[in-house]
Amino acid sequence: MSSLKKIQAPIQDEMKAFEPKFRDYMASKVALLDRITYYIVKRKGKQLRPMLVFLSAKLHGEIGDSSYRGAALVELMHTATLVHDDVVDDSNMRRGFFSLNALWKNKIAVLVGDYLLSRVLLLSVENKEFRLLELISTAVREMSEGELLQIEKARRLDIDEQVYFDIITKKTASLIASCCAVGTASVQSDEEKIEAMRLFGEYLGIAFQIKDDLFDFQKTAKTGKPTGIDIQEQKMTLPLIYALRTASSTDRKFMIRVVKRHNHDREKVEQVMAMVRDSGGIEYAEQKMNEYYQKALNILNAYPESEAKNSLLELADYVIQRNK
Amino acid sequence: MSSLKKIQAPIQDEMKAFEPKFRDYMASKVALLDRITYYIVKRKGKQLRPMLVFLSAKLHGEIGDSSYRGAALVELMHTATLVHDDVVDDSNMRRGFFSLNALWKNKIAVLVGDYLLSRVLLLSVENKEFRLLELISTAVREMSEGELLQIEKARRLDIDEQVYFDIITKKTASLIASCCAVGTASVQSDEEKIEAMRLFGEYLGIAFQIKDDLFDFQKTAKTGKPTGIDIQEQKMTLPLIYALRTASSTDRKFMIRVVKRHNHDREKVEQVMAMVRDSGGIEYAEQKMNEYYQKALNILNAYPESEAKNSLLELADYVIQRNK
Repeated sequence: MSSLKKIQAPIQDEMKAFEPKFRDYMASKVALLDRITYYIVKRKGKQLRPMLVFLSAKLHGEIGDSSYRGAALVELMHTATLVHDDVVDDSNMRRGFFSLNALWKNKIAVLVGDYLLSRVLLLSVENKEFRLLELISTAVREMSEGELLQIEKARRLDIDEQVYFDIITKKTASLIASCCAVGTASVQSDEEKIEAMRLFGEYLGIAFQIKDDLFDFQKTAKTGKPTGIDIQEQKMTLPLIYALRTASSTDRKFMIRVVKRHNHDREKVEQVMAMVRDSGGIEYAEQKMNEYYQKALNILNAYPESEAKNSLLELADYVIQRNK
Repeated sequence: MSSLKKIQAPIQDEMKAFEPKFRDYMASKVALLDRITYYIVKRKGKQLRPMLVFLSAKLHGEIGDSSYRGAALVELMHTATLVHDDVVDDSNMRRGFFSLNALWKNKIAVLVGDYLLSRVLLLSVENKEFRLLELISTAVREMSEGELLQIEKARRLDIDEQVYFDIITKKTASLIASCCAVGTASVQSDEEKIEAMRLFGEYLGIAFQIKDDLFDFQKTAKTGKPTGIDIQEQKMTLPLIYALRTASSTDRKFMIRVVKRHNHDREKVEQVMAMVRDSGGIEYAEQKMNEYYQKALNILNAYPESEAKNSLLELADYVIQRNK
């Protein structure tokens, strides 16, 4: 976390002031809701999203009330999707706490997600910040489309590289893109700058997801072995897609069989992982990640030197260097 | 349906023109989404909500593009909540079709609901119809708060008459209220008229829900007996709340025990229903329903005679007279 602390330095006052504001935005008269939002605030993650909003705002002007509301918008939206994800993934753990799903069941998770979405709406409408709302709404549409596209395609392992990039652009990169666009739009209205920063976030988000994919092939501190969980869960990641494309017909058939059967046979999963490694799929994914990282940097490089620019450069660095 | 046909007469062209527009608003590039929205359009219900929008618009002026988008907003929102309800209620049937939940599972239902919500947002933002969006967002917040309040209170049967009205005002009446307000706001901007029609919808919605509660105590065509499903499912409806309030301590204990145990013992359920009937709870609920119906009429009576006014009067009549 120390590198994140350094990245936060130019906006640390704002990040601190943001916390109680965010809690206030979620407040409700329904006791059950307040109990749940208490857990949500407690289990807050790295807060990359508000950081991106404030840094993008600072890169273009003075951070103001509108930037705080922009940060609240993306964080509420992110929280709403996490809560809905609890239903979607049926995951029992998230960020080390029990998921809402496990604690209070699906129905409450859906309603809380809906409630948070309504807070986003009202916050924007009350302050007549419609450009921010438009940027956020586009992200919601893309995230749900991206998830549904993934569900549709995953069943038949029908994911080539183009579909993969389509999915991760919508599913992961669109919210990060909207953070950068929202921060920029919160302090000035030049649409070219908003679009440039949206693209910066999109490239960064794509690099972020490829990095996530690569973790599956890295040795974990705990076992000294890669987990291979994505393969067990039939997730088509870039290294695997590359390996499938370049493999012999026999090898491809074997890999597909193992992946399709949600195979928990450790030996077979490790065989597939070795095939992916031997194919050069990991280097290929790293190369792609670096391409997107470079595209993101090129956008920032057009800006004059500043604290905010440096932090965004370091944040981009962090995204592709992080260990978890 | 013939009385609904008559009610629709002044807006039948608009209702017809609305259908293909509504389909277009839901269109997506993701094939899975299109397949699902096909089912949603097919299983459309009575379409009370678009009717209320168009009639409220016509009562105040010329139905225009903004009214169509208003009708789409409330219908998309209603559909999104139905789809999310599929998760919430875990119901297997809805409007005679299999629920999305049963067909494609929870995760897809959540994502489709989110997608529909994002369509609502973008439709409003693109057309800069922010007043409409505000009215709708308030309804979303109230609906999710109302459902959560119900979940919180229902566990301990902790629902007195005040809490009951709070829940149904938020859960059921707020969307109907927003239909009338949205229709009115789509053709003119006098806030007093918007608020008057919002209240008309709220009163109508409350009467609508009390009527729904009463069905549980009516003989069904199929069995010639009342179903008592609400009592079996631990739903606190107005006749039951009244009976609990007025019962002797022994009777109250008995009723609470039966309701709390999700009792499927037909004999005990029928005993509780007889106690509710004997308490005068049904007449009490009917009286309350009529009070709200009358409050709704009083608002309409301030308007000069018109086709739209007559249809709204008939619609209010339909709401408290309907058999299902």
